[in-house]
Amino acid sequence: MKRENHREDVIGRANVEDTQELLDYYDQLEEFDTGALWTVANKIEPWEPASTSIPTLWRFQDLREHVLRSIELVTPEKAGRRVVYLNNRGRQDVAAAVGWIYAGLQAMKPGELASAHRHSASAVRFIMEGSGAFTIVDGHKMTLGANDFVLTPNGTWHEHGVSEDGETCIWQDGLDIPLMNALEANFYEVHPDLNQAVGYPVNDMVSKWGQSGLRPTNEGWGKGYSPLFKYRWDVTYEALNDYAAVTDGSPFDGVMMEYVNPVTSGPVMQTMGASMQMLRPGEKTKAHRHTGSYLYHVAKGEGYSVINGRRFDWRKNDIFCVPSWAWHEHANKSASEDACLFCLNDLPVMRSLGIYREEAFGDNDGHQPVA
Amino acid sequence: MKRENHREDVIGRANVEDTQELLDYYDQLEEFDTGALWTVANKIEPWEPASTSIPTLWRFQDLREHVLRSIELVTPEKAGRRVVYLNNRGRQDVAAAVGWIYAGLQAMKPGELASAHRHSASAVRFIMEGSGAFTIVDGHKMTLGANDFVLTPNGTWHEHGVSEDGETCIWQDGLDIPLMNALEANFYEVHPDLNQAVGYPVNDMVSKWGQSGLRPTNEGWGKGYSPLFKYRWDVTYEALNDYAAVTDGSPFDGVMMEYVNPVTSGPVMQTMGASMQMLRPGEKTKAHRHTGSYLYHVAKGEGYSVINGRRFDWRKNDIFCVPSWAWHEHANKSASEDACLFCLNDLPVMRSLGIYREEAFGDNDGHQPVA
Amino acid sequence: MKRENHREDVIGRANVEDTQELLDYYDQLEEFDTGALWTVANKIEPWEPASTSIPTLWRFQDLREHVLRSIELVTPEKAGRRVVYLNNRGRQDVAAAVGWIYAGLQAMKPGELASAHRHSASAVRFIMEGSGAFTIVDGHKMTLGANDFVLTPNGTWHEHGVSEDGETCIWQDGLDIPLMNALEANFYEVHPDLNQAVGYPVNDMVSKWGQSGLRPTNEGWGKGYSPLFKYRWDVTYEALNDYAAVTDGSPFDGVMMEYVNPVTSGPVMQTMGASMQMLRPGEKTKAHRHTGSYLYHVAKGEGYSVINGRRFDWRKNDIFCVPSWAWHEHANKSASEDACLFCLNDLPVMRSLGIYREEAFGDNDGHQPVA
Amino acid sequence: MKRENHREDVIGRANVEDTQELLDYYDQLEEFDTGALWTVANKIEPWEPASTSIPTLWRFQDLREHVLRSIELVTPEKAGRRVVYLNNRGRQDVAAAVGWIYAGLQAMKPGELASAHRHSASAVRFIMEGSGAFTIVDGHKMTLGANDFVLTPNGTWHEHGVSEDGETCIWQDGLDIPLMNALEANFYEVHPDLNQAVGYPVNDMVSKWGQSGLRPTNEGWGKGYSPLFKYRWDVTYEALNDYAAVTDGSPFDGVMMEYVNPVTSGPVMQTMGASMQMLRPGEKTKAHRHTGSYLYHVAKGEGYSVINGRRFDWRKNDIFCVPSWAWHEHANKSASEDACLFCLNDLPVMRSLGIYREEAFGDNDGHQPVA
Repeated sequence: MKRENHREDVIGRANVEDTQELLDYYDQLEEFDTGALWTVANKIEPWEPASTSIPTLWRFQDLREHVLRSIELVTPEKAGRRVVYLNNRGRQDVAAAVGWIYAGLQAMKPGELASAHRHSASAVRFIMEGSGAFTIVDGHKMTLGANDFVLTPNGTWHEHGVSEDGETCIWQDGLDIPLMNALEANFYEVHPDLNQAVGYPVNDMVSKWGQSGLRPTNEGWGKGYSPLFKYRWDVTYEALNDYAAVTDGSPFDGVMMEYVNPVTSGPVMQTMGASMQMLRPGEKTKAHRHTGSYLYHVAKGEGYSVINGRRFDWRKNDIFCVPSWAWHEHANKSASEDACLFCLNDLPVMRSLGIYREEAFGDNDGHQPVA
Repeated sequence: MKRENHREDVIGRANVEDTQELLDYYDQLEEFDTGALWTVANKIEPWEPASTSIPTLWRFQDLREHVLRSIELVTPEKAGRRVVYLNNRGRQDVAAAVGWIYAGLQAMKPGELASAHRHSASAVRFIMEGSGAFTIVDGHKMTLGANDFVLTPNGTWHEHGVSEDGETCIWQDGLDIPLMNALEANFYEVHPDLNQAVGYPVNDMVSKWGQSGLRPTNEGWGKGYSPLFKYRWDVTYEALNDYAAVTDGSPFDGVMMEYVNPVTSGPVMQTMGASMQMLRPGEKTKAHRHTGSYLYHVAKGEGYSVINGRRFDWRKNDIFCVPSWAWHEHANKSASEDACLFCLNDLPVMRSLGIYREEAFGDNDGHQPVA
Repeated sequence: MKRENHREDVIGRANVEDTQELLDYYDQLEEFDTGALWTVANKIEPWEPASTSIPTLWRFQDLREHVLRSIELVTPEKAGRRVVYLNNRGRQDVAAAVGWIYAGLQAMKPGELASAHRHSASAVRFIMEGSGAFTIVDGHKMTLGANDFVLTPNGTWHEHGVSEDGETCIWQDGLDIPLMNALEANFYEVHPDLNQAVGYPVNDMVSKWGQSGLRPTNEGWGKGYSPLFKYRWDVTYEALNDYAAVTDGSPFDGVMMEYVNPVTSGPVMQTMGASMQMLRPGEKTKAHRHTGSYLYHVAKGEGYSVINGRRFDWRKNDIFCVPSWAWHEHANKSASEDACLFCLNDLPVMRSLGIYREEAFGDNDGHQPVA
Repeated sequence: MKRENHREDVIGRANVEDTQELLDYYDQLEEFDTGALWTVANKIEPWEPASTSIPTLWRFQDLREHVLRSIELVTPEKAGRRVVYLNNRGRQDVAAAVGWIYAGLQAMKPGELASAHRHSASAVRFIMEGSGAFTIVDGHKMTLGANDFVLTPNGTWHEHGVSEDGETCIWQDGLDIPLMNALEANFYEVHPDLNQAVGYPVNDMVSKWGQSGLRPTNEGWGKGYSPLFKYRWDVTYEALNDYAAVTDGSPFDGVMMEYVNPVTSGPVMQTMGASMQMLRPGEKTKAHRHTGSYLYHVAKGEGYSVINGRRFDWRKNDIFCVPSWAWHEHANKSASEDACLFCLNDLPVMRSLGIYREEAFGDNDGHQPVA
């Protein structure tokens, strides 16, 4: 067996040549479940992050038929959920779309209702097509239309359904399942009654917590996630337009807003954040990179992104990922229509742990050379 | 001279009879700027608060003509501001409407613009009638309609005006001037240029910070007051109606929402809070009391309030006060229309200092006997 | 009756001459419990704070005999507490030593124990002389020596005593009674059993919460005040010496440390803060001023302070006050010994409400001319 | 190739039989970097965490000679650091001692000084033997004795040395390197001058921030980690004894205190926490389990721990780990001496992300059967 040894000829880095004496020493260390740091130091302390995730674009036109076919192939009862998940080639061991974020496209027919469960993983559902979708979270039922998204946070009972008078729905699920597994903190429970009762007026949390500049006087909220379980597309799109009228926008992200917990103005959940950004007609942003993994969902329009020097063209309902510390920039191809990107990310983890870092691409007026 | 001596025949309270020896002792103490605590202990440590403010109702129909007459009587240049202030009979020494809150009705003609100033006192302006009103706060201009209110927080440059094409406006000013004076922390400055330049798009802070469940990604805010300087009546009234549909409301306050700083979900300013409450058709609330002074402004409808056993009938634009620890309950007189009460208060002070306390009126099914 | 009218001939300030028409108008306004703002605006909006408190020094040598004489004159049962309180000539209406802070010197004989009570006012006790003093706060008993101080926060049951084998004690009480009254939030209760049981090991809160860099794993604390009820002089003096060795100190305050709530690192109580500062041998600080009222207690040494241009010479156990926005600077008269000043203040109020402001004295190398 | 399929015959779980049609479907999905969730759902959503870390004890008597031998085998210049790292058999791929925590034993001779560097990983050093050790963190030099520990937080320049007049030192390094790599946020830099200048008095941060109940008035601290870079054993041991006198202790952990950031009372760093617990003579704790990985270092005494039913006997300077969600209980073997366990853990991550959970072992009076 050949031993690892990651030498670098740089002052302050490990640079120890293998000798027979050392190799014998390494064998002895191994007996006691130990090793010599200098053989692996340069490997485990890289100069900068090199993500194992591969920049990938999933085209809705490729996936749609396969997602719908799952309806014929399996029942919800047997499959639990009929989901085609995004399996990044660099992250197949943890079933992640990017970094520690899982994502999948789920399909459901009118009249179907999944069984209720809860888990340590936090989730968002972003509606892609169909009508009549709804989600119940801890007894609060929310109705959902295209580009709406709903939270089913860590520890909440939840279930999804499509009403009898609706149309077959497809949505994107985004969860931090891989992170919960990595952190060895993932629990799972099936609801004892398989389904939960609706205990409140429909969409009540939106009426209570979704008001501009106002909160209910006699309601408290101390949980780690937003009480505003549902975020509506019409409200979001109007907000982006309002904001666009009074801001120059970010050179890297155009007109961008964060979905927030209205009680803290922080992220919607402790482990996953979400944002929506508008690329104005013809807008081309400059490149930057930052720690944290990003999964983009095209909510509106057509354009392309350049990620680590490779161009990805996207349109409505396509999904693509930007791995941690990868250079990225976005462009709207239309000269007349705006384009909107929904983004699910693990920025709250980066920020809570004090490890968020970002950097602008300095050369070439901020644009990457495209391979 | 007769000395104070507030004896009470209760164990644990001061109960020392005056004797000649003690009176002589008191004289000696006085020479050294001292006194005997037991002569004043019961006075300065009351069993419960007894506010010096008198429950008072100011009728708009009484005041309107006098307010408008100020336009003929004085110029803004000479008066600074043409304001008829509410002078609670128990608080005339500090010019307060109730407790440590100052309030006044200000009138301004189209085309007028007050000079800009700033002070330690925090203020709100609540528009009562007219059109074309605007306020500029640290370079941000906001346009204002009836029942809108605007913040001019502690330390911000601000000025009010009415546009040339508007109509004569009357609004209520509410400030914590008496509190700032009592705390010996009141500073005042006239703007060096007398008026400030508008440095941002009109109503930009509303577009940035007034979005439901969203905040601008690239904007920070760390000040002690809300960046959402303006709160709109239409938005507020719609929010109350939304919330009313999903809540039973408070037994004491009906359907009530707090105006909040969107960044903290806390009060709009550090020294003054504001709320709007809806009394549904026919609603009669139960009585309670709490520390903190409240100034109510009738934003909509007709009704009455019972304050410490006395009934006050009110209608649109009337103003009335509830002193600290006074029992109070509200009633909407209409069986078909809702009534809305705007409330300006010093609850943030009570809460920051840890001295908020409340109590329900237990007898008589929660209703005070009316004198 | 002559009406108030505080005219100033400055642009942006009220400057309206009395006319008969206006005087009649003012009479009309008065009928409706209102007034014309411009008659009082300049009074209630001063250019800067002008405290009504008068800089005052209380010499322990003057007061000691009078304090001890109270032991002969009144019993604790009748007097409640035998206290000679500091009665600032500018604040006699509210029985304050300075601003909204009450202070008094209390005497107690060995074997005496006051009855237990609680109130909205927050208090500190700073021991001046004697031995065997103790205080019980919500069942936690603390033993107290000279220059130790103990908290009896808002709402806690508390009582003071001196053990049978102790010596007559004198201590300074400092409370925010005047503030609680001003804010109309003062409640008072006598303990139903007149005295409370000790429910924990003596000084337990010090053992739990007074450890450097450590907190008990299985103890929570969410109250608005410090769980470290007692602050010891020996610990404090050693800390000041440690800190002095590694800091240049403040030009205005020498080597100064804040007493803090170990859970928040903020002030010991929500309404009152405390600090101890060391003036090194020969040290003369520069003058500054700030909002907030300060009551100094000389814990060690001899020196003088210049307050608004007047010199006050002080020694051990003297007490003096610095009103809000008064210039002040301190000097240690000894060339070989340090001097220490304990300071009780309302800075937490200033900071919570966003109205703290400070300013250095610019002229004369930072020193005030002394009258 | 055989596909994964993790079927469970439980309602609410995936239970889809492989058919040729489905296997073909899975092949099609793979072409688009996707998969069928139901084939992996039960694997990625376990009922509860099953850590890949193996409970392991590293005996100091086994390792000491090997650690010292590294001094002969490699130079600091070539090795960077002479460290024997703990290589958990279940975590060799990430070089972790347990979970995402790296640990190693480092040796250094008198007069040696490592080069300065900084990285995203946060570290603690816990001194095991020798004298004259010191660490410099961002220009602050700290001297270190046995059982002292020092922080070198995320992003700080740091270097370790042993003074000329010291003795060869061995210490434990604990870092979150594996977590930083997993989160793809690890950066590394060598100091441009290879060593940094000492810019402050020795141990200044201890003098400033290590005082009981006091903080320096004129010093701010807003970083995500403790300014108290060094925690002393003598102070800690005295604190434990003080606390032991006034607490019953925890049934699971004996007398336990957390090392804290004095400014927040929270953990010493954002990604790693530390505690010290005392097992009183003869004390046997009950078993519990919780999410989060724990690495124990025996600071004093002899005893054993039962981890997932297996007994590990330990003595001074041994190190052992408790993986996430593993049952564990501790016992002090001595009837007369206390035993102390230092614990390094990732609890701050669990808490920041809202995924901390704990459970008591219910059966057998709280004690695990030992295999």
